[in-house]
Amino acid sequence: MSSLLSTDRWHRAQAWIGHSVALVDTPALVIDLDAMDRNLHRMADFASQRGLRLRPHAKMHKSAELALQQMAHGAVGVCVQKTDEAVALAQAGVGDVYISNEVIAPSKLQRLAHAARTLRTRFALAVDSVHGIDALAAALAHAGVNGRGTFDVYIEIDVGHGRCGIPPGDAAVALAQRIASHPVLHLAGLQAYHGSAQHQRDAAQRAASVAQAADAVQRTRQALQAQGFAVPLVTGAGTGTFQHEASSGVWGELQCGSYLFMDADYAANEADPGAPAFEHALFVKSAVTSRSAQHAVCDAGHKSHAIDSGLPAVAFPGGLSYFNGGDEHGVLRPATADAALPDLGETVWLIPGHCDPTVNLHDFLVGVRGGLAAGVVERMVRVDARGGIQ
Amino acid sequence: MSSLLSTDRWHRAQAWIGHSVALVDTPALVIDLDAMDRNLHRMADFASQRGLRLRPHAKMHKSAELALQQMAHGAVGVCVQKTDEAVALAQAGVGDVYISNEVIAPSKLQRLAHAARTLRTRFALAVDSVHGIDALAAALAHAGVNGRGTFDVYIEIDVGHGRCGIPPGDAAVALAQRIASHPVLHLAGLQAYHGSAQHQRDAAQRAASVAQAADAVQRTRQALQAQGFAVPLVTGAGTGTFQHEASSGVWGELQCGSYLFMDADYAANEADPGAPAFEHALFVKSAVTSRSAQHAVCDAGHKSHAIDSGLPAVAFPGGLSYFNGGDEHGVLRPATADAALPDLGETVWLIPGHCDPTVNLHDFLVGVRGGLAAGVVERMVRVDARGGIQ
Repeated sequence: MSSLLSTDRWHRAQAWIGHSVALVDTPALVIDLDAMDRNLHRMADFASQRGLRLRPHAKMHKSAELALQQMAHGAVGVCVQKTDEAVALAQAGVGDVYISNEVIAPSKLQRLAHAARTLRTRFALAVDSVHGIDALAAALAHAGVNGRGTFDVYIEIDVGHGRCGIPPGDAAVALAQRIASHPVLHLAGLQAYHGSAQHQRDAAQRAASVAQAADAVQRTRQALQAQGFAVPLVTGAGTGTFQHEASSGVWGELQCGSYLFMDADYAANEADPGAPAFEHALFVKSAVTSRSAQHAVCDAGHKSHAIDSGLPAVAFPGGLSYFNGGDEHGVLRPATADAALPDLGETVWLIPGHCDPTVNLHDFLVGVRGGLAAGVVERMVRVDARGGIQ
Repeated sequence: MSSLLSTDRWHRAQAWIGHSVALVDTPALVIDLDAMDRNLHRMADFASQRGLRLRPHAKMHKSAELALQQMAHGAVGVCVQKTDEAVALAQAGVGDVYISNEVIAPSKLQRLAHAARTLRTRFALAVDSVHGIDALAAALAHAGVNGRGTFDVYIEIDVGHGRCGIPPGDAAVALAQRIASHPVLHLAGLQAYHGSAQHQRDAAQRAASVAQAADAVQRTRQALQAQGFAVPLVTGAGTGTFQHEASSGVWGELQCGSYLFMDADYAANEADPGAPAFEHALFVKSAVTSRSAQHAVCDAGHKSHAIDSGLPAVAFPGGLSYFNGGDEHGVLRPATADAALPDLGETVWLIPGHCDPTVNLHDFLVGVRGGLAAGVVERMVRVDARGGIQ
């Protein structure tokens, strides 16, 4: 039995290459490739100028094609959050994948270990428990991966987000000792990502959060070094704060993901002085399917774009506000007194509130060159790890 | 190039059949088949006893297998919202599919017309504009579908939700005349669904909303009948209000969808006196991957379950509250003073806030017989129209 994705829909989608963006069926998730390329270069240049490693977070786009494009422009590899993502990207040829998250289930770790043994990809994993370290070592042994120091692990510390990770300071020592007890593992450094700081609107507040995180990292590093453990690298940072991690002298690797596409939520942050500016490069192409005197209804609801970080903004036509119309509809009303409602069939371009879970709703992204108004479909970007949540 | 869905992941999933639910990898979307079957029978019995047609909304499960199961228990067919859904279910053998939504794009209508000509499925469509009626007729003509009255259309009226549909009353006459001008089309009745009433918590308020909707339908029907148009059927209703539409004497067909799985949002409604009770039958199986002294972190975030209608409830273990941990994590904290946090690796069962967009995140549903604690995987239910938003 074949799936809708692998047959009918995918082939229809491929048929769009070379056609005008006007012909792309709606709703569709569209990349403005010109804007994306500018974002790609801006971040690559920033990391290069600062002498920092860039390891973009591929949980955002879940696409091997985009990961390889980032690596072709200097990224050392990518991060992911899930075993499914790591395996899917590795199978599609991405050579360096770090799971910046805890994986402790034996079945998943055996998949990972099997991939590490059979694919050309270099994997790494974050850990925050003895349980997880032992489970990883057992899975690697089971798969026959046993070269000394061949599998990199990063100890995750909670630098303020309050989710995964051990407390900063001495607690890392016990984990480092446990890692050292498994010769196949190599303590590659610390995972230190302040998730909630990314979305603090105030630039000074974000700077203060990263300063606290830097202090937490330093205390942990000192505790480890005092016990003779090297800490080769500190990895973390996101699109909302990377400028501060970069300036801290503490982080050696940046994990920003959303910069490539930008979303309405990140755009709502007060800009950091001097930081590179990123453009919206991800849009939902939608169309009006119903009209009343007071409102227009478009065909994109929250099965087309995630709304965890707010409803989408209307990029075009101007003067419209988007209201929640449920899973499959959006309700458009004039935002200003002189705004006209779009007609039946008219195209409406939306900027998603949050790119990561929006991309995860789609099997492919429509890459358009030459602008949204009159551009041409240049690439269909497969979302290789769509739905890869395990 | 093959997709993750069609090869690796789907085959892994199929391998679960016959295994204990304890072995199902996390996060996974699991159906408690015993509870689902009870829900299925309760609604079928209700409709049968009232002498009403049941046409469940398959936008909720997007699965041909479940649609066919509903039809085997008396449903006349299913509703969907999108052309992708209609075509996917028809291709998988569902013989009667009504798109209870406006589709006006020529490309989509040509797909639908092509499916109507080549598949054994009977299709129908909602309309609320002359533009849409003419576009449908043109697409049918283009595909060579031209038998007199062979394609059913329902005029949608806005009975209070404020989204699609024409105003109640005389406005329907012009659309009925336009439908009559295209011999291939048959005015099958009125689409009257009060979406927002479904989620009014207060039972009396829901009853009042449906009473207003019934009045709107009656006025429209009278306007049409006064001009000589028959109105064979009024179709609508949802899991939150169907009891009232059923008692009104106005509706002849119920479109409830969520009753099959139930979600936390519908469960928060004050129950209607005498209405059949539905059980939660859809759960996210999750596992703890990180622990601190204050909280546990599980591996299910809003890439595993939709949060548009609120965060999931924790079904098991008891005494825990779920807090938003982002796309891939949930943060669990004690809800009561004596609640214990689950250990690393422990299973946590969640009840999604809203089943429709949750199902849409998953390629398949794991059907478990014998309860979540110790049951066995009996079926893997393919979500045929997952991501089918066009």
